[in-house]
Amino acid sequence: MPIYKAPLEDVRFVLDEIVGLDKLSALPGYEDATPELVGQVLEEGAKLCEEVLFPLNQSGDGEGCHFENGVVRTPQGFKEAYTTYIEAGWQGLACDPAYGGQGLPKLVNIMMEEFICSANLSFGMYPGLSLGAYNALATYGSDELKARFLPRLVDGTWSGTMCLTEPHSGTDLGIIRTKAVPDEDGSYKITGTKIFISAGEHDLTENILHLVLARLPDAPAGTRGISLFLVPKFMPKEDGTPGPRNGVACGSIEHKMGIKASSTCVMNFEDATGWLVGEAHKGMRAMFVMMNAARLAVGIQGLGLAEVSYQNAVNYARERLQGRSLSGVKAPEKPADPIIVHPDVRRNLLTARAYTEGGRALGALVAYHLDVAEKHPDARARRDADEFVQLMTPIAKALFTDIGFEAGNIAVQVHGGHGFIWETGVEQYVRDARICQIYEGTNGIQALDLVGRKLPQDMGRLLRHFFHPVGRDIEADMENEDLAEFVLPLAKAFAKLQQATALIAQKGMKDPEEAGAAATDYLRLFGLVALGWMWLRMVKAAQAKLAAGEGNAVFYETKIKTARFYMAKLLPQINSLFITIAAGAKTLMEMDEAAF
Amino acid sequence: MPIYKAPLEDVRFVLDEIVGLDKLSALPGYEDATPELVGQVLEEGAKLCEEVLFPLNQSGDGEGCHFENGVVRTPQGFKEAYTTYIEAGWQGLACDPAYGGQGLPKLVNIMMEEFICSANLSFGMYPGLSLGAYNALATYGSDELKARFLPRLVDGTWSGTMCLTEPHSGTDLGIIRTKAVPDEDGSYKITGTKIFISAGEHDLTENILHLVLARLPDAPAGTRGISLFLVPKFMPKEDGTPGPRNGVACGSIEHKMGIKASSTCVMNFEDATGWLVGEAHKGMRAMFVMMNAARLAVGIQGLGLAEVSYQNAVNYARERLQGRSLSGVKAPEKPADPIIVHPDVRRNLLTARAYTEGGRALGALVAYHLDVAEKHPDARARRDADEFVQLMTPIAKALFTDIGFEAGNIAVQVHGGHGFIWETGVEQYVRDARICQIYEGTNGIQALDLVGRKLPQDMGRLLRHFFHPVGRDIEADMENEDLAEFVLPLAKAFAKLQQATALIAQKGMKDPEEAGAAATDYLRLFGLVALGWMWLRMVKAAQAKLAAGEGNAVFYETKIKTARFYMAKLLPQINSLFITIAAGAKTLMEMDEAAF
Repeated sequence: MPIYKAPLEDVRFVLDEIVGLDKLSALPGYEDATPELVGQVLEEGAKLCEEVLFPLNQSGDGEGCHFENGVVRTPQGFKEAYTTYIEAGWQGLACDPAYGGQGLPKLVNIMMEEFICSANLSFGMYPGLSLGAYNALATYGSDELKARFLPRLVDGTWSGTMCLTEPHSGTDLGIIRTKAVPDEDGSYKITGTKIFISAGEHDLTENILHLVLARLPDAPAGTRGISLFLVPKFMPKEDGTPGPRNGVACGSIEHKMGIKASSTCVMNFEDATGWLVGEAHKGMRAMFVMMNAARLAVGIQGLGLAEVSYQNAVNYARERLQGRSLSGVKAPEKPADPIIVHPDVRRNLLTARAYTEGGRALGALVAYHLDVAEKHPDARARRDADEFVQLMTPIAKALFTDIGFEAGNIAVQVHGGHGFIWETGVEQYVRDARICQIYEGTNGIQALDLVGRKLPQDMGRLLRHFFHPVGRDIEADMENEDLAEFVLPLAKAFAKLQQATALIAQKGMKDPEEAGAAATDYLRLFGLVALGWMWLRMVKAAQAKLAAGEGNAVFYETKIKTARFYMAKLLPQINSLFITIAAGAKTLMEMDEAAF
Repeated sequence: MPIYKAPLEDVRFVLDEIVGLDKLSALPGYEDATPELVGQVLEEGAKLCEEVLFPLNQSGDGEGCHFENGVVRTPQGFKEAYTTYIEAGWQGLACDPAYGGQGLPKLVNIMMEEFICSANLSFGMYPGLSLGAYNALATYGSDELKARFLPRLVDGTWSGTMCLTEPHSGTDLGIIRTKAVPDEDGSYKITGTKIFISAGEHDLTENILHLVLARLPDAPAGTRGISLFLVPKFMPKEDGTPGPRNGVACGSIEHKMGIKASSTCVMNFEDATGWLVGEAHKGMRAMFVMMNAARLAVGIQGLGLAEVSYQNAVNYARERLQGRSLSGVKAPEKPADPIIVHPDVRRNLLTARAYTEGGRALGALVAYHLDVAEKHPDARARRDADEFVQLMTPIAKALFTDIGFEAGNIAVQVHGGHGFIWETGVEQYVRDARICQIYEGTNGIQALDLVGRKLPQDMGRLLRHFFHPVGRDIEADMENEDLAEFVLPLAKAFAKLQQATALIAQKGMKDPEEAGAAATDYLRLFGLVALGWMWLRMVKAAQAKLAAGEGNAVFYETKIKTARFYMAKLLPQINSLFITIAAGAKTLMEMDEAAF
């Protein structure tokens, strides 16, 4: 049976020492988000995840969702767990108090999302989709729509979806066919088929609000002709309770590799009543609000799975007795030593650990900037923070989900043959993690977003929000002997990143396929440097604490050792990545399609 | 629905142009293995795999094996397919004609095994285990045991297993507890529990022969006290037909991540009658005969899955219309271009292709040496060939199974969301491929075998069987301008491998944990150089054919382009690997166990 304990100490460290929660508490609207309150909230959240959600993860995978005559039943225990979840107010944690939310920073919510995804990713999909719908509606919905629907999304009695994909249209939303025809009363009739709709149908809430991309009759071709509509499963009555059924139904659910307790639905819309969200033909803009938040959230899913995978791998490596240490018997009283004595097992464990902790710090930093972008009184500060988020979102999504999959596989590998057995519980993490690299834009699409949109935007202005602080941090400690073993490798890696950036900008200007060919390697290179930067910051914070004799010395010493491992064993990947980036597009493009 | 066509043209190329099947036909015992006969055999084999085994792959995964009261039923169609398989004589393809086999080279059998594993890995497990049992029995069994049992394994009416693992004992076989007590009639009574026994129980054959590791009462502790026994499910009667049930029964089957149509059994032995195979206490030696052949076979499983994954990824990338080419519209008559126009999709496809084809050539070269080691009239030639096989076996096992998993994941990624859906059929390849990295010794154990046993053996003598021919090939073409773009990167990579080897030999002598810490990266580095060597050879062969105007020009040009991709985009991994190898063991070992 797998184990899970929420990493409260590490989250605390990241919030207090790395991103600076106290600076958020100083922003208008976040006055209540004191370290004490946040600490209590996260402790409660940890308990919920460990005691309520985690015990349903494996049983949910084994049972899956049930579909019969258009009705979806979630696995045993999910409805009760969901009720517990919403009754404690978790759905509204970071939502506007005007609609019943608690108004805590998104940073706090992201930390809680990590716990949820470690404990039970399938469960987390339902509230996660609702939050995506909330974000889009809160940003682009009319006051009437907001007043009518947001309180239900915030209290969790109703849930939300994002209906984008169609059978022939995934990455390329410009070719969707779902139609919206204006009705006399100002509403629209929506008709079409959407697939891969997470939480499209289920038994957790009394109503479901679908956010649907569709084309109006006068829509121009391509993505400039897409509009966003709100389509409820049940039409709300005057008193706000669910009324008659709308023209939307679940046609079937998918039989998938993982996240089996999350319903993935084919949704058929037939003259379903909906309301326009935002402007006509500007649906992509609103959708991107949902997608950007969702992309960071998917990255956090990856980290959540990485964390629980790491914990289980360590747990097994301590218990499993097999063979003897290469440096002499370590447990003479036992028939064999625990496998954690072996360097290759440690290499596996530390890989998962260094990625996860580095990713947690980076994810928190992005979430922190989300909050600044929303709440800072200064417009320039808001814009800068928003640009940092824009730049880092594709990196966080792709890098963290790759980390989640890698850590899941590490957990399986450390378990040996037992890892392949369903009952052990870790192969589920591999299957669950696999989708995170695909949905909300495949990781290849994230890489194209980075090199094709974010990199050239405003002559590279976005990039400066990363390059400047990293450069400053490196410069500040270039002569610091206590940090030399961390600063020097980071400085080398950062130089490679700058070189690679210049190379891609220059070649990509002439030939976009050159940028496309480098995209995935470049995103990884960028991500590795970003994690290296986080590790430098974490080492500095840990050294300061140790020097001051404050806190848990073992925790801080372990941080420093993990950073050392990262610099020595993971960051060097940048060398090969730089070479393959520089190798260009030729070997990819010279092959005839027919020759593949 | 997935697709599969056996890659006959590429296999032909490898046999004729790279490893030299004609040289095998010149060895005593292989006179019949003419290119014509082998061609016919492989064509028949391809047909069987495409038409009989492949259609059962997905249905077998969906249905799985059934267990009831100690009886295992394989999925629908498996028994009929198995009958077809053995009636056509495939089980005895490479077996001794003295026992009814066809006596073809192992090289030919390995190629057929690749087809089988592409078509249906779960099915392939049953005959694969039988062949492992055949190899051990043929090498170490008494004449009486051989005469009595080998014909049944060869004609496939009986099958075999390898019973090694126990609940507390996997990698570390020195601590097994299964006991063997001598009986008066020269047989033994075997008692104990074995787990993870592939094909331990099923309905395909009338009897099952278990090869079981156990301890005799006077056995010394550790691996030097293990003996190998043959334990049949049914005791054979005088006339050779199965008689009364022996004391061995299947307790349960595992619920696994993949290879669901292959039964993985808990086998309980209770005073089961068995016969000693080989000498008492020397069971590990006999087991290694099975394991070495099995390790190469598992590597080939990885390649088989890589091939079918590649084919499905290409097929989808040609059909799926999504977005437009970065260099301008390619299919104006269609709503979007096929995704194969995108550089990042091509990078994925070519990665799978270059690994698979390079791996196929390397796997064939190892199999070729297996044949030479057995059949060559000159003892020195036999020894040299055997040493090459010993050196390359852990590399083939680990590298090829990593390639299988990576290619499976590439197929899923290219399919986007559709790849995560069971019906699409490619996520099965990921789940099936995952076990190949674990069984027959995890890939971490292969790496330790390479650095701990193979590298130091006889002062590095094994290594020379690789280093010398690679060095010669590089030197021979160092000045050849037509090959410069291939020879130069290979030469650089080869130099890094030599440096890394010296480094590990030197540091590992003083501190075995230094070797252990480098093992996995070193195996990968070695494997990448080996594939680079194969690509150089393939380019030379292709250039020669093109210069002579012989054969399919597109095939040879594509070989050269794929080699170019390999050198530019995959081989550069060696740079990072060298750095992490050189970084040593310190960052792995300095962390306290409790701090993980």
